[in-house]
Amino acid sequence: MTGTGRTVGIVGLGLIGGSLAQALVARGVAVVATTRAASTRRAAAEAGVAVVEEVAEVVGEADLVVLATPLSAMADHLARVGAALPEGPQAPTVTDVGSVKGPLAVSSLSLGDPSVFVGGHPMAGTEAVGWPAADPHLFEGRRWAVAVDPPVALGRWAEVADLAIAAGSEVVPVEAAAHDQAVALVSHLPYAVAALAAGRLVDDGVAGLARSLAAGSFGDLTRVAGGHPSLGAEMATANAPALRPQLEALADDLRALAAALDARADDVAAVFASGRAGRDALDEARRAVLVPTEASMGRTDLVALGRRGGRVVAVAPAAPDVERLDVVVLDPGGSGG
Amino acid sequence: MTGTGRTVGIVGLGLIGGSLAQALVARGVAVVATTRAASTRRAAAEAGVAVVEEVAEVVGEADLVVLATPLSAMADHLARVGAALPEGPQAPTVTDVGSVKGPLAVSSLSLGDPSVFVGGHPMAGTEAVGWPAADPHLFEGRRWAVAVDPPVALGRWAEVADLAIAAGSEVVPVEAAAHDQAVALVSHLPYAVAALAAGRLVDDGVAGLARSLAAGSFGDLTRVAGGHPSLGAEMATANAPALRPQLEALADDLRALAAALDARADDVAAVFASGRAGRDALDEARRAVLVPTEASMGRTDLVALGRRGGRVVAVAPAAPDVERLDVVVLDPGGSGG
Repeated sequence: MTGTGRTVGIVGLGLIGGSLAQALVARGVAVVATTRAASTRRAAAEAGVAVVEEVAEVVGEADLVVLATPLSAMADHLARVGAALPEGPQAPTVTDVGSVKGPLAVSSLSLGDPSVFVGGHPMAGTEAVGWPAADPHLFEGRRWAVAVDPPVALGRWAEVADLAIAAGSEVVPVEAAAHDQAVALVSHLPYAVAALAAGRLVDDGVAGLARSLAAGSFGDLTRVAGGHPSLGAEMATANAPALRPQLEALADDLRALAAALDARADDVAAVFASGRAGRDALDEARRAVLVPTEASMGRTDLVALGRRGGRVVAVAPAAPDVERLDVVVLDPGGSGG
Repeated sequence: MTGTGRTVGIVGLGLIGGSLAQALVARGVAVVATTRAASTRRAAAEAGVAVVEEVAEVVGEADLVVLATPLSAMADHLARVGAALPEGPQAPTVTDVGSVKGPLAVSSLSLGDPSVFVGGHPMAGTEAVGWPAADPHLFEGRRWAVAVDPPVALGRWAEVADLAIAAGSEVVPVEAAAHDQAVALVSHLPYAVAALAAGRLVDDGVAGLARSLAAGSFGDLTRVAGGHPSLGAEMATANAPALRPQLEALADDLRALAAALDARADDVAAVFASGRAGRDALDEARRAVLVPTEASMGRTDLVALGRRGGRVVAVAPAAPDVERLDVVVLDPGGSGG
């Protein structure tokens, strides 16, 4: 963290909260946290985390509070944090690590000062869960979405971005709604498809033979179905408004392809050519080497940067109510659409 | 190969044909082959393959002929092989490596003696193509489906199974129709879904942001979309009758999940629980340690073995018209459905 001497509070020490705690402790940042399981409390204390009993204690001691509970418990915990928040600029900034950003942004409007809340989403995680699976290197080289919608205070956005960067990630500025649409496509749809396809191996008429013949492509398709099923169900439900059109669009595409198989060879070829183009675009976006560039950016600049695939890799501390931030960005240029 | 002193003929020296040629040469088996590209002819000759001009020459010199052309060219090449085949038991056995088994089985009925043709499908391959990507270890530890439908002569089936085993694979006995159904689910459906999902990264409204936020799950889902698009289109078209119901069933499932997102939490949970069960079944099938067991098997025994996920790992040579084969099998038992 560029702001030394600060304390980060973490509510929940599972895979994400635990990994963040370990990453921050390793960088010499003070961490205060609360979690339920006694075994995790002991392990976290041994790892250098100041473990406390109540959410209110975390809020009282931290300059920045991170909600790292399961998605379904986020709104409750945000309310508890809100009840403990002091008023005014000395109130800590509050963020979260949930994979859906819209609903909690709505919940945050009930806070006394909604501008203290900045939604976040590290694009990291494994099929493993809990503190024993935590890894201080989990966030290194990953993207971390940070929501910049009004009424977020830009200086508080900078604090959360700085936290993500300190953990090793590149920050993607997002609007909550666009984030939820994008992850519906690139995260929640893959989980749903993996579950539906893998489920066929239980009840399909040729399931025994199919399991025997399954090779790389089916293994790739269904890999994330091996995670905890409640995680997939929770993400799908929480992001229902954005996921539903993605599910329906893929269903339409599958039916169109099925209809084209008979006679329309050009339409079939177009599906696979478009898939290759999309995959190439993904690979190119990953491989692109961008030169870090200094910039001064307001809210709309940040949103546009994120939309075209750009990231923030450094940000200067700023007062909460500034209009622009001094940042260092990786910017692919173009429209990104 | 257990039958020493035999010659294997290969038509087409791309990834699969080339890899097989290299695997056989490495085991001291004589290989005669034909292919179009001059650079491949030179490279294959240097690697110890007897390269000839015509398919008829391959048929004249080989005890076992392997068709390893692209799927769309298989039927033409089978006809050329058929025109060169001598009559009677001295005719070489003919097999192929195509990913769809039904159509070529139908084509084989036009041969003078259809019992010489035994369809095969090694479950191996990469996104790479051509002789330069060939690898003599490509088939090691893989499954290789070998079709045992009438009028296949069981002794000729044993020859093809022995070839697959010599290349390092375990043999899955299949009926052509069940094979095509199974691979529609575990291979052709994943290619179609990967292409459709990856295509969204070109034209989706949040494509730039989505590319930026895409992490492991989307990368897994779309990996095979990075291969040559004509391969996916060719497989989908060739296996249309079996793939169509899989595409339509997944479309139905996606729509049902979309509808359940609103209110039916139990239905959503059931989708992800079923997916986990299917993935677990796949992983367990892969991990199962089976003791090799000697058996005497007729055609129906072999079909049942394949249906329950079993494989043949050794087979004794036999006259073409035997009713049973002496085999060593890995047999998971149970019904396999």
